[in-house]
Amino acid sequence: MALYLITGASRGLGLELARQLGSLPASEVSKVFATARGDAPILEELAKKSSGRVIVVRLDVTNEASIKQAAVEVEANLDGKGLDILINNAGILQYALGVSTMDNLTESFTTNVLGVHWVTRAFIPLLRKGSLKKVVNISSTIGSIATSRFVHLLPAPAYKITKAALNSLTVQYALDYEKEGFTIFALSPGWLRTDLGGETADLSVEQGGKASLEKIFNTGKEQNGQFIKIEIKGWPNDGRNQYDGSPAPW
Amino acid sequence: MALYLITGASRGLGLELARQLGSLPASEVSKVFATARGDAPILEELAKKSSGRVIVVRLDVTNEASIKQAAVEVEANLDGKGLDILINNAGILQYALGVSTMDNLTESFTTNVLGVHWVTRAFIPLLRKGSLKKVVNISSTIGSIATSRFVHLLPAPAYKITKAALNSLTVQYALDYEKEGFTIFALSPGWLRTDLGGETADLSVEQGGKASLEKIFNTGKEQNGQFIKIEIKGWPNDGRNQYDGSPAPW
Repeated sequence: MALYLITGASRGLGLELARQLGSLPASEVSKVFATARGDAPILEELAKKSSGRVIVVRLDVTNEASIKQAAVEVEANLDGKGLDILINNAGILQYALGVSTMDNLTESFTTNVLGVHWVTRAFIPLLRKGSLKKVVNISSTIGSIATSRFVHLLPAPAYKITKAALNSLTVQYALDYEKEGFTIFALSPGWLRTDLGGETADLSVEQGGKASLEKIFNTGKEQNGQFIKIEIKGWPNDGRNQYDGSPAPW
Repeated sequence: MALYLITGASRGLGLELARQLGSLPASEVSKVFATARGDAPILEELAKKSSGRVIVVRLDVTNEASIKQAAVEVEANLDGKGLDILINNAGILQYALGVSTMDNLTESFTTNVLGVHWVTRAFIPLLRKGSLKKVVNISSTIGSIATSRFVHLLPAPAYKITKAALNSLTVQYALDYEKEGFTIFALSPGWLRTDLGGETADLSVEQGGKASLEKIFNTGKEQNGQFIKIEIKGWPNDGRNQYDGSPAPW
């Protein structure tokens, strides 16, 4: 019966989460609002075949006016009900060969941090009316400051810095809203074979989506404010235990 | 004999660091370039009485062109020598009553993160020619994500989030430049009775400045990439051990 909203659902993990949620029985998932900033033909096709359970919403996380407009649209589609789970999935990974050459930090920050802030505050009134009150921010262990050395060779400093900032933002929201019964956490969905993750990534998008949903379903108030890794049973430990399902270090 | 540059030296901790460094024997500190974005009467007075050892430089950390101009000016004053220690001290603390009301995140980010990035990359060529190659980023345990709950009541989410991002930026620089012999770390100077810290803070600016300089002098390559707390002997533990001189959790 739960009502979901997922940002960045035109492709990659966001699209996969919409697909998997939309295929669950209506007794578990009643509607999925899947947002995209522009044309999203695969998502539109998915929505068309979903018997009204996947609903495409235009939303650009870098434009607060577009987010507010989307919130009005979603509310009109909820028939007085609240939203249960918000998944802040939209994000960008930008490269720079060496941190001192980095000229895309502001752009990454706008999408990966400000965008999540603006979307979250726009949808909190609807989440308050929901029964689960869950906000899941898609982060990455690549943004863990404590384990930076493991991923030093990945030339994406703006991604690492903005995911660390997103983790901090997540905790500020978690602490502010826990008294109202919210569960707000950061989730590392693993390194997936998406446009963002590339072809050599560890996991298929199906695996990553499935493992992410397990955490999204099963994480409750006692994990509020945590940074959670997905669980892939039997995955070898690379020193970061990145698929053991436990909290990641900040 | 060392040559220093300190940003944000018109007041508070930056001014105090310039004052204490300027009062050390010339055999230890030869020159201190102290930057300010605007009028800085107390710093100008300090410089006037310093026999040319404290030099005021105009630099606005939010304007990369002004940073590049300042680097040219500093280079012209170095007589072919390099810079030894860069202290990225300029920073702002902005308030918001609850994270969802926060509308100053971009402004805090520009000064506290982008500014440090721009200053660091502008001065790396001069630091390369120096003998110590040290970069100290003034951070705060308030930005530690791991201990967020201790400081939840401080209504400054943009400060917390941008200091976490600064910590990540610091580690990216530390990892990129360690092969060249750099020591780059984040330092929490304590809660000081400055304009930023307020009158009820734990320590005087003199104490904080002195304890910060001890860490700046004594921290070497083995602490590259760390987040270091000052040491105030005998200070009671509030649960975060914030003045025990050890590394802080991210």
